[in-house]
Amino acid sequence: MVGGGGVNDATLASSFDIERIRRDFPILAQTVRGKPLVFLDSGASAQKPRAVIDAMVRCMEERYANVHRGAYFLSEAATEAYEAARGAVARFLNAADPREIVFTTNSTAAINLVAHSWGRGVMQPGQAVLISELEHHANIVPWQLLRDDKGIALRVARVTDSGEIDLDDVAAKLADGKVGLVAMAHMSNVLGTVAPVERIIRMAQAAGAKVLLDGSQAAVHRRVDMQALGADFYVFTGHKLYGPTGIGVLWARLEHQERMPPFLGGGDMISMVTMERSEWAPPPAKFEAGTPPIIEAVGLHAAIDYVSAIGMPAIEAHERQLVDHAMRRLTDIDGLTLLGRAQDRGGVFAFALDNAHPHDLATLLDRAGIAVRAGRHCAEPLHSRFGVEGGTVRASFGLYTTAQEVDFLAEALTKAREFFA
Amino acid sequence: MVGGGGVNDATLASSFDIERIRRDFPILAQTVRGKPLVFLDSGASAQKPRAVIDAMVRCMEERYANVHRGAYFLSEAATEAYEAARGAVARFLNAADPREIVFTTNSTAAINLVAHSWGRGVMQPGQAVLISELEHHANIVPWQLLRDDKGIALRVARVTDSGEIDLDDVAAKLADGKVGLVAMAHMSNVLGTVAPVERIIRMAQAAGAKVLLDGSQAAVHRRVDMQALGADFYVFTGHKLYGPTGIGVLWARLEHQERMPPFLGGGDMISMVTMERSEWAPPPAKFEAGTPPIIEAVGLHAAIDYVSAIGMPAIEAHERQLVDHAMRRLTDIDGLTLLGRAQDRGGVFAFALDNAHPHDLATLLDRAGIAVRAGRHCAEPLHSRFGVEGGTVRASFGLYTTAQEVDFLAEALTKAREFFA
Repeated sequence: MVGGGGVNDATLASSFDIERIRRDFPILAQTVRGKPLVFLDSGASAQKPRAVIDAMVRCMEERYANVHRGAYFLSEAATEAYEAARGAVARFLNAADPREIVFTTNSTAAINLVAHSWGRGVMQPGQAVLISELEHHANIVPWQLLRDDKGIALRVARVTDSGEIDLDDVAAKLADGKVGLVAMAHMSNVLGTVAPVERIIRMAQAAGAKVLLDGSQAAVHRRVDMQALGADFYVFTGHKLYGPTGIGVLWARLEHQERMPPFLGGGDMISMVTMERSEWAPPPAKFEAGTPPIIEAVGLHAAIDYVSAIGMPAIEAHERQLVDHAMRRLTDIDGLTLLGRAQDRGGVFAFALDNAHPHDLATLLDRAGIAVRAGRHCAEPLHSRFGVEGGTVRASFGLYTTAQEVDFLAEALTKAREFFA
Repeated sequence: MVGGGGVNDATLASSFDIERIRRDFPILAQTVRGKPLVFLDSGASAQKPRAVIDAMVRCMEERYANVHRGAYFLSEAATEAYEAARGAVARFLNAADPREIVFTTNSTAAINLVAHSWGRGVMQPGQAVLISELEHHANIVPWQLLRDDKGIALRVARVTDSGEIDLDDVAAKLADGKVGLVAMAHMSNVLGTVAPVERIIRMAQAAGAKVLLDGSQAAVHRRVDMQALGADFYVFTGHKLYGPTGIGVLWARLEHQERMPPFLGGGDMISMVTMERSEWAPPPAKFEAGTPPIIEAVGLHAAIDYVSAIGMPAIEAHERQLVDHAMRRLTDIDGLTLLGRAQDRGGVFAFALDNAHPHDLATLLDRAGIAVRAGRHCAEPLHSRFGVEGGTVRASFGLYTTAQEVDFLAEALTKAREFFA
C-alpha cells in the first residue's frame, strides 16, 4: 500500500520515540472509567502538547497586549509574536511570502472567506464550483449558499466505490470550461483518502479553474508545500494540528488577495475610514478585521515548532505503519465494513459493524476507554453515497497514536461483534 | 460628576481589595525598562487573571476534545464545558434564554454577522442603518459594505462638542421611519462616553427600528441587563473582559435569530445536508459553523466568574472613583486637551498634548513604563469630528488600575509637557 522507501520509513520511524512523544501530551496520561485513555478522535480535534499549553500561558503571563497599534513594549512584543506565528505558518507550508497567510478562526471560516470574497466578488453568475462527493460540510454548505445567492452552479464529482475521486468525472465536469473554482478535500475526514491533488490541480488549471484545497486533515499528516503544489487557496485549522481552537489559516496567492474584496469589515483591515468611504489595508490585513486570535497564534506557532522538530516525514512514516497495521486488524474482523479502500490514505477509518448502531458501538467502546466518534462526521452526502445514512463509527489517529491502541480497538470491536450478534 | 450614592460607592469600593486583585494578574508584576509596568491600554485588550489562564490549561490538560458530536467521555465533558460557558454568558447579560447567546470570534465578527444576516437577509433596500460619529470602525465598515452591496443607506447621528450623542439629531434621522436598524456603541472606546441607551432604544423602537449595541467597552465596566435594556442585538468580546482572544458574543433575540438566514456555512450549523439543499440547525447553532472556540469559551467562562465574584457594581464603583480622580489630574495639566466631557463616562481618556505627536508622546510614556495607545483608536471619523486627524493618546482602565497609576500618568505627562515645550 505505501510503496517504496521501506528502509527509509523504518529508519524514520525508529527515530520516532512514541513514548517520549506521548509524555508531551498531559491529557494522554489519564484514565477513563478506570481504563487508560485510548484517544482515537484526533481527526475531530487533536490533543495539545505541553509546549503549546506553555506558550499560551507565557503569552498571557508575560507578553500580552493587543497587536499592531500600540507604541509600547508589551504591544510591540505581542505584535512580534503574532507576526512570527505568520512566518512560522508560511515556512510550514513553504509559502512564497508570509503575506500569503491569512489568520482566520478555523478552516470553515477560511472556506467561507473564499466563498464570500472570491465567490461573490470575483466569480461571475454562470460559472460553477466543482466539489466532490466526499467533502466535509464546511466545503459544501458555503458553496450552496453562494449558489443560492449568486447563481453560481455547484457541480459534484463522483467518488468511486473504493473511496477515490473519480478523475474521469472530474474531467467531464471541467470540460465545458465553466468551472471557475475546484474546491476539494486534500484528505477525506471520513475515508482517509488522500486525493491526487497534483493531477486535479493540473486538470483544473488546464480548464481555466482555480483550486482551493481543504487541508484540515492533510496538513496534519504529511508535508504540504505550497510552492510545489501550485494551488490557489489552501486552508487548515490549528486545533487539528495540536494547536488551540480559535485559529485557522487561509493560504492565498497575493495576486488573488489583491483582487478579492474584503469580507468582514472593522478595525485593522482598513487604511482609511471616513463615513462616506473606506480604503482597505494591503493583504493579508485586509482580511483580518478586529482583534485577531493573538494567544491562539502563539499556540499555533508552538504547535508548528513541535511537529517540525519531530519532522513531518517522520510523522508520516509513523502513520503509514499505523495505517497498514489498522488495515490488517480491521479487515480481519467479521461483520465489520470499512468505508473506502483508497490506495493513498491517511489515518482515518470509518466503519460499520453488523447489527450495531454506530452510537451504541461508540458508547460500548467508550466503556473500554476508547474514544471514537459516531455519526456522519459532517459528511452526510458521502454517507448517502455509500448507503450508510445511519452513520459510521470513525477512528482517527494522531502522531501520539500507537499500534497497541489499534490493537485495543480491534479487540474491543471483536468483543462488540459478539455483544451485538 | 458621578452624582448620587456616594456612600454606597464608598462602601462598595472599600470592599474592593485592589492589591489582592492585582496579584491575580501575573503580568502586572513585571517591570518594563526597569520601571514597574503601568498598563493603561485595557480598552484595547485587558490582561488575564490566573483563574482564566488556569481554566484554559485545565481544559487542555484534562478535558479537551471536540464538542457536540462525540459519544465518549472527553467529548461529553468538553461539550458540557462549552455549553456551561454559554449559560454563564447568559447569566452575565441577564438574557432570557441561553440560546440567545451566539459565540463568535470577537465583537467585529458579531457585528458583521448581523450586518450580513440581518442586513442582507431581513432588511430591504431603501431602508437605512443609523450609527453615530463616535463609532469604532467595527461598527462603521460592516454597514458601509452593506450599503454598497444592498442599497441600504447609512445615516450618521452627530456627536456634540462634549462628546455625547446628539439625541435631537437621532430623532431627526429616525423621523421618516426608514431606519431599520440603529447600531451604536454603548460606551465610546475613545471618549469614554456612555450613551443613554435606554432613551435611544425607546426612540428607535418608536420609529420602528431595531437596535444593536456594541458593548465591547460597556460590558467590561458596568452591569448590562438584556431583559431590562430591551435592545435587539448586543455584542461584546472576551479579550476585553479579562478573557482570551478568539471569542466574542452576539446576544440576539430568538425570534430575530429565527428570521435570520445563516451567515457562515459548515459543520454543526446544519440539521440536514444533501448536495441539492441543506436545512439549518435551530438557533444558536445555526450561526456557529465549524469547530467553535472551545478552549476560549472555557476561558471566557472563568473570566465571567472572576468579575462576577468581585461584582460588577464594585468594579463600576472603583472605576467611578478612578474616573473622577483622572479627570481632576488630567484637567490640571496645561496644554493637555481632553476629547469629550460626557456626563456619563467610563475609564477611557483620549487626549492631545500641545506640540507633541501622539506617537512620540506614547513612546516617551513607554520609557517610564506606562503603556498607552497612540493613534486614532479605530475611530477615524470621530477624530476628524474633533479636528485631531493626527490622532490622540489614549489611556484606558481595567479593574486592576489604581489611583497611583493615574498619578504616574499625570506626572509623566507634566514632564512630557516640559520636554515637548
